[in-house]
Amino acid sequence: MQDCIFCRIAKHEIPASIVYEDDMFVAFLDIRPINKGHTLIVPKVHAMTLLDLPDDVLREELVLAKRLAKVILEVTGFKAFNLFNTNGRESGQEVFHHHLHIIPRKDEDGLKLSISPVQYGEGEAKELEELIRKGMEGK
Amino acid sequence: MQDCIFCRIAKHEIPASIVYEDDMFVAFLDIRPINKGHTLIVPKVHAMTLLDLPDDVLREELVLAKRLAKVILEVTGFKAFNLFNTNGRESGQEVFHHHLHIIPRKDEDGLKLSISPVQYGEGEAKELEELIRKGMEGK
Repeated sequence: MQDCIFCRIAKHEIPASIVYEDDMFVAFLDIRPINKGHTLIVPKVHAMTLLDLPDDVLREELVLAKRLAKVILEVTGFKAFNLFNTNGRESGQEVFHHHLHIIPRKDEDGLKLSISPVQYGEGEAKELEELIRKGMEGK
Repeated sequence: MQDCIFCRIAKHEIPASIVYEDDMFVAFLDIRPINKGHTLIVPKVHAMTLLDLPDDVLREELVLAKRLAKVILEVTGFKAFNLFNTNGRESGQEVFHHHLHIIPRKDEDGLKLSISPVQYGEGEAKELEELIRKGMEGK
């Protein structure tokens, strides 16, 4: 993907603070960090979302996230972190090449997640449970 | 872990809307859903955070997340989703047994993520990049 900014970072065509690289992934500091050390893990293969990624890449991504998160916490002194990932515009995705955020966290760091939980009507959760269960049997 | 609510759900000791189960994982509808279909993937092994999980579990978790997310979107009609995971109190973790949220998303659904990005000082990103790079060499 010639115009994909993350593909271009992976090819070293545009600069980034690359903290880790192997055959499958590149990881670099987010340029708009929620806290210092905020890092993106990006597979080198171009895939828009999680749903487009090959399983062999998916199998290694959280293993790498664990290794990287340990080092990021050690180096920065943070004690906690979030993993966050967007899939599709309505989820907040802005760069349409799959990426996994590792976000070091501390109290009062300005990240606020506000939600308005919905409620299931009578029998609705049970119905949805059965639909998903059935769907998973075929996959 | 006798008092862990997610261990007890995994053992079917307390009820939940279980949408998928295998030897390694249980997945169930979040009781406080951001949108209908909001699901938690929970490894059956008790581990507080990502950092405590064995690699063989990590290798399967995103493969399962991809399969489940596909089915959840099909069944609910949502087009987008987030993955979200907390590690440690300061990251918003409330149940201290690792869990991965699959959150179906749509426009104006009430989930708001507000952030106050920090800025790296002169040379600071480069310094951090090198510290993380060096840390990763030993792991």
